[in-house]
Amino acid sequence: MIFVGERINTGFKDIKQAVLDKNPRPLQDWARKQSEAGANFLDVNLGAVSSNPADMCWMIETVQKAVDTAICVDTNKPAILAEAIKLCRPGTLINSTTAAEEKLQAVLPIAVEHEASVIGLVMDESGTPKSVEQRVENAGKILAKAMELGMEPQRIFLDPIVMPLKFMQDQARLILEAARQFQLFSDPPPHTICGLSNVASGSAHGELINRTFLVMAIANGFDAAICNVMDTELVNAARTAELVMDREIYADSYLRK
Amino acid sequence: MIFVGERINTGFKDIKQAVLDKNPRPLQDWARKQSEAGANFLDVNLGAVSSNPADMCWMIETVQKAVDTAICVDTNKPAILAEAIKLCRPGTLINSTTAAEEKLQAVLPIAVEHEASVIGLVMDESGTPKSVEQRVENAGKILAKAMELGMEPQRIFLDPIVMPLKFMQDQARLILEAARQFQLFSDPPPHTICGLSNVASGSAHGELINRTFLVMAIANGFDAAICNVMDTELVNAARTAELVMDREIYADSYLRK
Repeated sequence: MIFVGERINTGFKDIKQAVLDKNPRPLQDWARKQSEAGANFLDVNLGAVSSNPADMCWMIETVQKAVDTAICVDTNKPAILAEAIKLCRPGTLINSTTAAEEKLQAVLPIAVEHEASVIGLVMDESGTPKSVEQRVENAGKILAKAMELGMEPQRIFLDPIVMPLKFMQDQARLILEAARQFQLFSDPPPHTICGLSNVASGSAHGELINRTFLVMAIANGFDAAICNVMDTELVNAARTAELVMDREIYADSYLRK
Repeated sequence: MIFVGERINTGFKDIKQAVLDKNPRPLQDWARKQSEAGANFLDVNLGAVSSNPADMCWMIETVQKAVDTAICVDTNKPAILAEAIKLCRPGTLINSTTAAEEKLQAVLPIAVEHEASVIGLVMDESGTPKSVEQRVENAGKILAKAMELGMEPQRIFLDPIVMPLKFMQDQARLILEAARQFQLFSDPPPHTICGLSNVASGSAHGELINRTFLVMAIANGFDAAICNVMDTELVNAARTAELVMDREIYADSYLRK
């Protein structure tokens, strides 16, 4: 399982304030805590706080001074991405492209140049699809474009776009089915990832819903998640699901690795 | 989700002793507790304690004096089944037939006569299959024989036979895949059930493994389980998984129904 720690994001008040104050401490604390909890990547998201690439660069440099964990550069602005990725150590994950032509043309060459992996959201010019078929079609488009540029499928993290269960309940099942079909694209297949916390948005039992959905997602081929890696129950559930999928070797001590 | 309470089984010491002593209390306590916890059926299993149908009949009558919950008659001896089912109130579940010819011929006519449902274990004369294909073939055989006798698919509970993760780790994934294929037999499909606790047999993290496997099972079409219905976390995880599958309508209070 590939865990991307979600916490260094200006959507969280402490991170927003830290970026405004250029206070490294909260970013570095979360970088260390998430890394110790097993994060394989640390998502770094400047959000709407600023459109100045220098601010994103500051965030990444601040995090990289604290830990060696790879960065997941999270921005929808290609100009910020282009500057920020120059600072990242090798093995970066770009969050994200979509299947929209303009976006693919902006993001994929940057990924190629910097040997980065890329999250591909299955939305396109007309928004987020509601059907399994359109999700799979958009995913295939992203994968094909990336492969045309010489990227291997294992550098693509397809994201079928998880919706809040409370408000769009019919979508969850379709998202799982789309992910299952992504496994047929190649052998080995591309990665499948989601921004997990969205599924429980607005729900009374958020942790339970996140955990349950992630386990069901793993049963359908997901092997990565952007999530709260500090949630031990979530991580333990995911590890157990990977055992069931026969991706890790069983040992009674599997939770303590 | 259809929950079958596993607890009235002489594999548990208190029940074994109660049957030997003809002490109704432990059976009736478990009957009430499991029913209050939401059990749709109560499994009643005499096990190896006795081969006398009268002992199974005593167990069933004892349980039925305490609660109205339907009985799941659990025996591999057709002679015991034939006597015991006469006492059961309508809506009984028979646990179980297999795909072995002799077993089908013994059990299915009893199910037809008493308008009962039947659990169909996908094993046959040569034992428990290791492959998806043989599990599906045996399941199809059970379903076809039942339908020949006029039973509707919804009266069949196919059981792909869950194996201990610790000792046969490669089987879990295949069992989930077999269950997924069972969903294609008919529309609506037959039920899919498992004796859940077996998956965690011998494992250090039994409840976590049971819960995780059940959620993955629901993602693959299972809609029933013989399990520890007293495990609130297990029941809550299953309810959440059913929401994700869009089988129950979301409400923030869904855990308190």
